Amino acid sequence: MNTPNAEWRDLDALHHLHPFTNHASLRAAGARVIVKADGPYIYDSEGHRILDGMAGLWTTNVGYGRRELADAARDQILELPFYNTFFKTTHPPVVALSQKLAEIAPPHINQVFYGSSGSESNDTAIRLIRHYWALKGEPSRRVIISRKNAYHGSTIAAGSMGGMGHVHQHSYPVYEGFRHVMDPCWFDEGNDGESLDEFGIRAARAIEDEILAVGPENVAAFAGELVQGAGGVKIAPNTYWPEVQRIVDKYGILLLADEVITGFGRLGTWFASDHYGIKPNLITFAKAVTSGYLPLSGLLIDDRIVEALLAHDDDFNHGYTFSGHPVACAVALKNLEIMERERLLPRVTDYAAPALARMLGKFKDHPLVGEVRSVGMMGAMELVADKKTRRRFENPGRVGLICRDHFFREGFIMRAVFDTMVCAPPLIWADSEFEEAERVIGKALDLTLADVAGEIAA
Amino acid sequence: MNTPNAEWRDLDALHHLHPFTNHASLRAAGARVIVKADGPYIYDSEGHRILDGMAGLWTTNVGYGRRELADAARDQILELPFYNTFFKTTHPPVVALSQKLAEIAPPHINQVFYGSSGSESNDTAIRLIRHYWALKGEPSRRVIISRKNAYHGSTIAAGSMGGMGHVHQHSYPVYEGFRHVMDPCWFDEGNDGESLDEFGIRAARAIEDEILAVGPENVAAFAGELVQGAGGVKIAPNTYWPEVQRIVDKYGILLLADEVITGFGRLGTWFASDHYGIKPNLITFAKAVTSGYLPLSGLLIDDRIVEALLAHDDDFNHGYTFSGHPVACAVALKNLEIMERERLLPRVTDYAAPALARMLGKFKDHPLVGEVRSVGMMGAMELVADKKTRRRFENPGRVGLICRDHFFREGFIMRAVFDTMVCAPPLIWADSEFEEAERVIGKALDLTLADVAGEIAA
Repeated sequence: MNTPNAEWRDLDALHHLHPFTNHASLRAAGARVIVKADGPYIYDSEGHRILDGMAGLWTTNVGYGRRELADAARDQILELPFYNTFFKTTHPPVVALSQKLAEIAPPHINQVFYGSSGSESNDTAIRLIRHYWALKGEPSRRVIISRKNAYHGSTIAAGSMGGMGHVHQHSYPVYEGFRHVMDPCWFDEGNDGESLDEFGIRAARAIEDEILAVGPENVAAFAGELVQGAGGVKIAPNTYWPEVQRIVDKYGILLLADEVITGFGRLGTWFASDHYGIKPNLITFAKAVTSGYLPLSGLLIDDRIVEALLAHDDDFNHGYTFSGHPVACAVALKNLEIMERERLLPRVTDYAAPALARMLGKFKDHPLVGEVRSVGMMGAMELVADKKTRRRFENPGRVGLICRDHFFREGFIMRAVFDTMVCAPPLIWADSEFEEAERVIGKALDLTLADVAGEIAA
Repeated sequence: MNTPNAEWRDLDALHHLHPFTNHASLRAAGARVIVKADGPYIYDSEGHRILDGMAGLWTTNVGYGRRELADAARDQILELPFYNTFFKTTHPPVVALSQKLAEIAPPHINQVFYGSSGSESNDTAIRLIRHYWALKGEPSRRVIISRKNAYHGSTIAAGSMGGMGHVHQHSYPVYEGFRHVMDPCWFDEGNDGESLDEFGIRAARAIEDEILAVGPENVAAFAGELVQGAGGVKIAPNTYWPEVQRIVDKYGILLLADEVITGFGRLGTWFASDHYGIKPNLITFAKAVTSGYLPLSGLLIDDRIVEALLAHDDDFNHGYTFSGHPVACAVALKNLEIMERERLLPRVTDYAAPALARMLGKFKDHPLVGEVRSVGMMGAMELVADKKTRRRFENPGRVGLICRDHFFREGFIMRAVFDTMVCAPPLIWADSEFEEAERVIGKALDLTLADVAGEIAA
């Protein structure tokens, strides 16, 4: 693959349709070609070294270049590269990973159903939630309450559960049975003078209001990312999740925790459900289970739902050829072993999360920055036209892209969600990476400010 | 992972929910643990060697134990284990694979959109087909016509496009906008005295009838597996696909060829669309693109649709984190290289397909067998209570399972689709494997006959 850079770019334009992309404008500009990666860095075909503040795409928690994961993949391919789990057969890697996941999941959760992407496993969750209520003799319980700006994947059903208008727009039409309530993001939804704690309770009560509006007998579940990632690292106040738990318990509905982003240490616990002290009935995971090295996902299912399945003498008519893929499972097992051996979870709690908060905090007084926030190893900075009033810029997303491109040129990756700059570094960052990120962020914010100075409130 | 067999089985039951499985009965019986594989064989934890007549699950076209694929995975992990393709970035493996796929796809198809399973890529296809018509100013074109017994995957949308009642039953409810017409399986649908060729035309005309019933202005596409795999290796007569092409052309609707099973040499051509001489607008693939060694799928998209996307200055709001995963792409490239170097496509045409047809043909006079059929390296035997009248057994699926279990005990895998025994061996089978399969099939059919002799018509 020693093709010159321009040729890669041309071939990419000729043959490759990227996800969530404006193809005309990408082809006009040309894609940047990422050729290798090591530790916290990626490298492009022109020799630039780039600090990856997004860990791939919320995936690469142990960093790049792990020889152990390469060896685990090779060894499993030589032993058993694939076998299906449909017809009364299983294999050691899927059993061992299932046992491990049951060990690290909350105590009331002991079973796994696999897929190859967060979208697939959220699709499984939707089907299983409704199947559960059908088995329990309450088929009217079909409505799943979710939130605005939620992202649960991109299959038609998972995208419909998500709360993003632009995904709904290309769904033709959305799948039925979802309701979306306010998200618990104080910066967008909080009232002046309202404390974070008060706001958290109010945001949770929006779920209860919706349950009552729909009729509790029609509600199957509430679904939420523990931290809304693609929506802009929207971090709920500490009062929010306990109140959500109280509400789902009160009405007896299921709680689906989407941990595709927060699973496997991002908040310093195996699952963010532990961090927030909630007991979901279902947890979806993907991404960091393999640190993104291979596609794998799953749905953790609690004993209440499994008992309903086992009491029913028939198939659950759902699954994927690659469910429990042996090579992906072997790599996941090794990835979790690395996280334990290197004590990455306590590292997040004791070192990395405070370091990230401190680093982002240094920019809270920057004229462009309306708010900084973080939890564990994920954070966000709101770029605003007016700090005092939280007023955003005209044409949402324009200034975010300007800022993202400055980051990129300076050798650092943060993602722009409209005008919210978000990051989720690998859990291995040390002082040198935090210092490098701080330098680049400072410079890129100043360059962005220069570009939009005329739009900033005095 | 040196766990004794019984312990694997217990742990599997405690922690692993299998796809398309009756969990209560699996747990009562215990799963068989597949521990390794080599060439055409898999091995279980009790030391049994089993000839794999299903190539994993229509996946392992080059057979097991390919060191080159293990090395390709390891090398790519060390170089670049993951990077996303969302934000104007690409990487060499996805570019190289896209170029290769464009080279081997039909000439009017030059672009790829990736996923990690056939389900995901069919979900993409549904969304893209409707997006295309919205872009063309004909948003009323939303209906996709598919067929009974079609299998297009297991996400809610893909399962709704499929034509399997038991999948629909657990969809709560099916996604809207699909119509299902008869499948082109003469054994089930052919009239007495009707020739195969006549039947093929009649089955295709069912699509035209449905177009007219729905109103052509409301029809977006026809979708079909080139050979219906999971439905029971239902092989259309030679007259069918040319007539389908005529009909979709006449009404200007899109043709989606689901080649998740038939892609990559199963019929002796890269795509079965070549074998049948049709020009689909969209081709979904998965499984054998990597020979199942890693999860990867995609949607091949023709120039007509790509031009519509490029003319539209906005994102197509869809995609997956693992779209174009570099490790999966690198393994796919190496897999295609092996298929070319070992000339597996001409091998199918010149040797393996005739050998399979000959081998299955030896059982057409067996008292249990109502029909044998095959195309390329996929075949089926219908088990029936009455050969003359094509009358099936009571309780569909019961005799198929008896037969499947005899195969399994004798060290051979065929799958039972109700009472249709289906096979899809790896493309590498030589005389010794065909001979071994013939011995086992003969013995297992006789054992099955002994079990159900009282039910057979005199």
